[in-house]
Amino acid sequence: MARHVDVAELVDRAREGQPRAVARLISLVEDEAPQLRAVAAALAPLTGRARVLGITGPPGAGKSTSTSALVSAYRERGARVGVLAVDPSSPFSGGALLGDRIRMSDHATDPGVFIRSMATRGHLGGMAAATPQALRVLDAAGFDVVIIETVGVGQSEVDVVRLADTTLVLLAPGMGDGIQAAKAGILEVADVFVVNKADRDGAEATVNDLKYMISLGRKEIRGPSWRQPIVRTIATKAEGIPELLDAIDAHASWMTDHGELEGRRTHRAATEVEAIAVAGLRARLGSVHGGDALDQLAKRVVAGELDPYAAADQLIDQLG
Amino acid sequence: MARHVDVAELVDRAREGQPRAVARLISLVEDEAPQLRAVAAALAPLTGRARVLGITGPPGAGKSTSTSALVSAYRERGARVGVLAVDPSSPFSGGALLGDRIRMSDHATDPGVFIRSMATRGHLGGMAAATPQALRVLDAAGFDVVIIETVGVGQSEVDVVRLADTTLVLLAPGMGDGIQAAKAGILEVADVFVVNKADRDGAEATVNDLKYMISLGRKEIRGPSWRQPIVRTIATKAEGIPELLDAIDAHASWMTDHGELEGRRTHRAATEVEAIAVAGLRARLGSVHGGDALDQLAKRVVAGELDPYAAADQLIDQLG
Repeated sequence: MARHVDVAELVDRAREGQPRAVARLISLVEDEAPQLRAVAAALAPLTGRARVLGITGPPGAGKSTSTSALVSAYRERGARVGVLAVDPSSPFSGGALLGDRIRMSDHATDPGVFIRSMATRGHLGGMAAATPQALRVLDAAGFDVVIIETVGVGQSEVDVVRLADTTLVLLAPGMGDGIQAAKAGILEVADVFVVNKADRDGAEATVNDLKYMISLGRKEIRGPSWRQPIVRTIATKAEGIPELLDAIDAHASWMTDHGELEGRRTHRAATEVEAIAVAGLRARLGSVHGGDALDQLAKRVVAGELDPYAAADQLIDQLG
Repeated sequence: MARHVDVAELVDRAREGQPRAVARLISLVEDEAPQLRAVAAALAPLTGRARVLGITGPPGAGKSTSTSALVSAYRERGARVGVLAVDPSSPFSGGALLGDRIRMSDHATDPGVFIRSMATRGHLGGMAAATPQALRVLDAAGFDVVIIETVGVGQSEVDVVRLADTTLVLLAPGMGDGIQAAKAGILEVADVFVVNKADRDGAEATVNDLKYMISLGRKEIRGPSWRQPIVRTIATKAEGIPELLDAIDAHASWMTDHGELEGRRTHRAATEVEAIAVAGLRARLGSVHGGDALDQLAKRVVAGELDPYAAADQLIDQLG
């Protein structure tokens, strides 16, 4: 498979709107292909334009339907929209391929929409590393809006959502004590709350629970000036979607006015750079003395001759 | 709270069976207290005796009840038993405190049993780092068997289960397409399968599904010699628990005979040492130029002047 790839040409074609070029670039960064660094270098000067939205929430809240409705709404505004569906197939659950095809069908014939499922390839770390690079591809390819959709369970998914400029947390009524259980976690990541399926019984109770949580959580968790709005939607009928876009726009304006967008993006880049550096150092640790150093130290730990912290010190010393 | 801690005395008291000393030591390693390294050094020569069992499976399979039944069975054998209940409170779910109290009640008055919930403190990485250290505390304190119980969802929990010498994967009938969905993931981590609630409708279908999966998965996933057994239990009535103990013993014998125990423990120690070293290097990266280097590089990435890979290279170079 080591065939020649003209990265510059691929980037040009992606910017012209050729979906196959976009897909190819994402595959290159996802697979950590030999061309990864060349691709990253070519993309860098082209990035920073896309508005990045994160959508998360518990299973059943209607994330895919809401994403689809948002795509349609942004398309009506003339924006090109990319979607990264981060659907971690945990060792105990299934994959995302069927959902991908269902989502595709609504927008399959629209050249202004690009949808990609980020598979986990057996390890969430892989997905968490690949998603920011895929985001860079879509940004550089000229997509105006990129939506990152993820199932809201677990730390790694939250890390993915933190890539977003604006994060929507979706809830639906009738999900039992979901909100009570969710506690402060969702307050931390939410910029905008969405109560979807707002025509169902219990929708107002969900809104009121959220209001109460927000009132409790505001002081510690958020700065004083951004008040997390709660938007009611019925995504299947596109009801409330214009209001949701307004809320997203309001958050974008607030961020720009308060220097928060720059701050978030810098924080995001710092996290990304650090993760890449750590992965590089981890690889170096694993190859000290041809990979033998770690094994020898581990054997001494098992024998009780060394504690793991002392062993780690010795390993780092041998990095040289 | 920076009061004097006599680590040697604490370790002595833990080995005498004082639960408060055990709890204190676990807190010290969990909190990464200043004494962490002194504790680790004191524990090292005392470790390596405990048999470590992992129990995982989807919510509702009966993990807590099964753990409790195993504790009782090992107590009848005269073994001291420690339990680490790793119950990650994801940002979208609740904590483990209630479950802890329920579990405690059966064995609360038994000095030969120590049960601890490992909280996540907001980040799964913290739990994944603290659990091996807590395991070392229980091992050094002379517990003959340590059971690590974890909800079977997500990579980090699987990492925790990999600490075990023998891993039990629990399933229950009537969990829909749980098994089909679980696919190869559970084959990878399971040494023994347990079909709990074996008196329910569908138990035999679950057993047959498992047999089929095992027959499909064996070649790639396991060496030829260990045949993963399937044990039927009704944990609430302690039925099948003696057979489960037999299966665990059989796996232990097989591991000893094949040098697998040593191999697993070395691999476990290597993972632990590497994680500690990586965390140390990560801390160093964050403090290059008083923490300013990463921030400056991140700003250049946001400005499109530098790609994240080139930035990571520069950061590592500045480690010196």
